[in-house]
Amino acid sequence: MTHLDTLTDAILHTHFVEVEASGRHVHLTEAQARQLFGHGLTAERPLSQPGQFLCRERVALVGPKGRLDRVAVLGPARAEAQVEISLTDARALGIDAPVRLSGDTAGTPGIAIEGPAGRLDLDHGVLAAQRHIHMTPADAARYGLQNGDTVSIQCLSARPLILQGVAVRVSDRFATYVHIDFDEANACGHRRGDLGRILHD
Amino acid sequence: MTHLDTLTDAILHTHFVEVEASGRHVHLTEAQARQLFGHGLTAERPLSQPGQFLCRERVALVGPKGRLDRVAVLGPARAEAQVEISLTDARALGIDAPVRLSGDTAGTPGIAIEGPAGRLDLDHGVLAAQRHIHMTPADAARYGLQNGDTVSIQCLSARPLILQGVAVRVSDRFATYVHIDFDEANACGHRRGDLGRILHD
Repeated sequence: MTHLDTLTDAILHTHFVEVEASGRHVHLTEAQARQLFGHGLTAERPLSQPGQFLCRERVALVGPKGRLDRVAVLGPARAEAQVEISLTDARALGIDAPVRLSGDTAGTPGIAIEGPAGRLDLDHGVLAAQRHIHMTPADAARYGLQNGDTVSIQCLSARPLILQGVAVRVSDRFATYVHIDFDEANACGHRRGDLGRILHD
Repeated sequence: MTHLDTLTDAILHTHFVEVEASGRHVHLTEAQARQLFGHGLTAERPLSQPGQFLCRERVALVGPKGRLDRVAVLGPARAEAQVEISLTDARALGIDAPVRLSGDTAGTPGIAIEGPAGRLDLDHGVLAAQRHIHMTPADAARYGLQNGDTVSIQCLSARPLILQGVAVRVSDRFATYVHIDFDEANACGHRRGDLGRILHD
């Protein structure tokens, strides 16, 4: 190949995805929302994933060693509650949260959730979200990736690092974003709008 | 090369270093220790770096947005105070700590430190420690590295990642360990004794 071919090849095979940092948050069922707030979830602002929103409602998380107040609730309501915290949060709460993909809650620890109208004792559902990419089918096809693949992501941020084992999740309900938690965000010095480069595992 | 040569070469050029997570801590001068505690620093237990120790004394850090109690003090006393916190801590305290190598405190923000016998207002010295390797001259020679180099470290931990731009610090006063902060430790799922593999930048 000529130098130009090499350069063209490199550009065509370099894919950047915006990295978003997800703060601690809670997903609730419709019934649980009514129990905690006396009404259903109400939207404060939309999130990057289509149809998802940050709620006006906030909750407190209460663990054996501590509590976290004003924790975000994301909507819309789901079929099952899930509490996504960082490992820093897990230590503060005294809960041994496993690193899991969203939805994989079997065998995870529970937690108490307090709202202005009530309290809820979850017997499971607490996890630290495994780093992942939400991806449209079009982007997955372009990047040569499939749902269930893992890739590495080089975070082009103030404290550069390469995240390995990033789960690729493909759906036509998604927009293409890398999601990391606040421990990972602080570890890489993340700022809003930072890009990640996809490296094939 | 034969397969055996290739394998031998790979083993000879693969270097592992233990990764240690450093919690938030404070270094003080002798005079500052007396001001905060009414006496000099006393050792609770030795640290991995020769001559360094965790003190029995603890302090509180007070920033515009929050305080952190029971913060570790490391000895022996130094020529200048330094407060090493994570970016998570920085957010909780409301202090915009830059990522710096230890000792590079020019222009860093200050903080208030409270001890049982007094209070101290530092006008500078707060930083988030840049990830680094302490290395003996013998290990540096073996790994082909010099003081001031940077390498990448692949953390062989529960949430694997590759830390880029890890500063190599070589001194005959050091033991060879990678030091990361608690944000980085949580981001990689660090457990005591985890190893990192040196990758040349």
